[in-house]
Amino acid sequence: MPDQISIQSPADFHVHLRQSKMSELVTPHVQEGGVSLAYVMPNLVPPITSADQAVSYLESLKSLAPSTQFVGTLYLGPELTPDEIAKAARSGVRGVKSYPRGVTTNSDGGIEDYETYFPIFEAMEREGMVLNLHGELPSDIEKGICVMNAEPLFLSHLEKIHRRFPKLKIVLEHATTRAAVEAVKRCGDTVACTITPHHLQLVVDDWAGKPLNFCKPVAKMPDDRQALRDVIREGHPRFFLGSDSAPHPLANKFPSATTHGAPAINDTGATTGVISCGCAAGIYTSSILIPLCATLLESFGALENLEKYVSKNGRDFYGYPVDPATPPLVLKRVQPVGKDGVVPPVYIHPDFVNVSDSDPAKVQVVPFYAGQRLAWEIAQ
Amino acid sequence: MPDQISIQSPADFHVHLRQSKMSELVTPHVQEGGVSLAYVMPNLVPPITSADQAVSYLESLKSLAPSTQFVGTLYLGPELTPDEIAKAARSGVRGVKSYPRGVTTNSDGGIEDYETYFPIFEAMEREGMVLNLHGELPSDIEKGICVMNAEPLFLSHLEKIHRRFPKLKIVLEHATTRAAVEAVKRCGDTVACTITPHHLQLVVDDWAGKPLNFCKPVAKMPDDRQALRDVIREGHPRFFLGSDSAPHPLANKFPSATTHGAPAINDTGATTGVISCGCAAGIYTSSILIPLCATLLESFGALENLEKYVSKNGRDFYGYPVDPATPPLVLKRVQPVGKDGVVPPVYIHPDFVNVSDSDPAKVQVVPFYAGQRLAWEIAQ
Repeated sequence: MPDQISIQSPADFHVHLRQSKMSELVTPHVQEGGVSLAYVMPNLVPPITSADQAVSYLESLKSLAPSTQFVGTLYLGPELTPDEIAKAARSGVRGVKSYPRGVTTNSDGGIEDYETYFPIFEAMEREGMVLNLHGELPSDIEKGICVMNAEPLFLSHLEKIHRRFPKLKIVLEHATTRAAVEAVKRCGDTVACTITPHHLQLVVDDWAGKPLNFCKPVAKMPDDRQALRDVIREGHPRFFLGSDSAPHPLANKFPSATTHGAPAINDTGATTGVISCGCAAGIYTSSILIPLCATLLESFGALENLEKYVSKNGRDFYGYPVDPATPPLVLKRVQPVGKDGVVPPVYIHPDFVNVSDSDPAKVQVVPFYAGQRLAWEIAQ
Repeated sequence: MPDQISIQSPADFHVHLRQSKMSELVTPHVQEGGVSLAYVMPNLVPPITSADQAVSYLESLKSLAPSTQFVGTLYLGPELTPDEIAKAARSGVRGVKSYPRGVTTNSDGGIEDYETYFPIFEAMEREGMVLNLHGELPSDIEKGICVMNAEPLFLSHLEKIHRRFPKLKIVLEHATTRAAVEAVKRCGDTVACTITPHHLQLVVDDWAGKPLNFCKPVAKMPDDRQALRDVIREGHPRFFLGSDSAPHPLANKFPSATTHGAPAINDTGATTGVISCGCAAGIYTSSILIPLCATLLESFGALENLEKYVSKNGRDFYGYPVDPATPPLVLKRVQPVGKDGVVPPVYIHPDFVNVSDSDPAKVQVVPFYAGQRLAWEIAQ
């Protein structure tokens, strides 16, 4: 068992860095978690749908974390045009993210029908841009579609787009099922897949009644987790890290029925809505990302593939080669004494230290593994 | 479409009425929900494991709701003896509830191996007592057992006990899957099955990130719900109402990370436990039970089987015939004006009206369908 590991320039090919105060809190965490390159999702409010917006957003991130390389994406929607794709490509925007409507955070403007976007995909193929697919169908209970099978039922869309645009680079994001792993393997070299660290660890039991572990796509069955672990252990070149790290204010992870779910009955007693009392979907890992990946991969015998998972495979697929002049990230094994390797319970933006925890506006985030000890840490 | 329905003496063959203040709050709700006979679960603290305890508990319930008929059960565990079974039967205790260890609320003393209990089952068969099975295996991720398949994987135990004790009356409680419905149908006439109203309505999406809808067994896939609805629509005589109504203080349904899930790190920084931040499993329906059942059965075309589901089938199986002198329960269709048919947002024990909502000791319960309008109500 090694006590030290060196990795060339880790990259996170799927991360949410938000806006305003939350962005101020989490953007510097990318480097803290050991990552040099962050491929940033466009589901802001409003979503990023133009090259100019993307450039301006990346500048705001750069000002918060000057030594991190940020790569931008656009949000697939009816506003996008082939001309805008060409302009975005010239501006360094690398991909376009597709969200099925209503499936996850800020996806209300998501897509319903892929054929509408074939002209966009043609332009992307021409420009060498990457299509990032959130691979779930929206739930439709009458049709038998729910959160547990939404990903397997989506895969025919992936295969259809790939057949129609065989040169278009496509990434199936945050795969959670054996079916998804097998579908990506069946596709050609232009189709890759991100896997989050939390999906390498969690199964359905872990989010049943546990809001901190609730994310979309939901963690699935033990056999699905096994398939995700196996493909990383195998070192398959088209599977790599996209953390889907998604910070949510603690108050949104733990709504209370009284403050968030008050029954919507108006003065005459008519029901004007239903009680939702929903917990925000998302798991936050940016601040601990590479030590977490090392800890998890070691737990299932895949530590020797850590560099492929967190750097080489993704960089090869996207075409961001490592700069050999950059010193590698060095991880060392945690000595289990004191608070060594223990993940902080919460991160709070300094402006909100004295704000009540129940205030939904309070910018504080509980990370994955909070209060638990990781097996690896970044050497100072 | 009828505007009025009469039902002979509805019975709820699986209900949790708790202890002390919570029992004071919810026990009178049984009658309020239209139910005449309540078959009461024994998972108290400590569990009910003797005839004397059962009799004393039923007396306490009777003092809270004198016109409701309460039927008692024992908790299957190593303390039980064949003699105690005989004594319990003489005291009017009707069944013994088996909880797999750790699967649900207060099940830490649950069973691990059924063969140990064969002498108890023999005594029960002799005395005509009913075995009530919580039909789930404990989750064991390494073995592939999780909350989504824990019930199908349990069914071989049901079939094994039935084959060994063909005259023993067995009820598979709160079935949630097509596999369970089919297994019960395959068994002989001594095996029956309760189905909760909430499992006739919910699927996995409804509890994903939504603590109010989280219960055990968890609601499953759309096809499973279809099987539950179909067997009620079919009017199969061995399937009937057991509400599994389970009140939990609101603060336990909505824990906050700061009050309930503080990371367990001691002064030296060592992790002494993991963050759980778990929401209590259980859905509360007692107070609205028969109007809720009418509303749901009508929604999937089974209203004509309402009396079979909520009275006849269960009473026939257990042998509690309707007293023809008792006037029937009359339901009338809700007129959607004002607060007619709207389920209250919360029930609060009068002693706790001024206690903070975040106090875990506050006895207040949010019912299923809170703030929503039912299609049926009890005629005054």
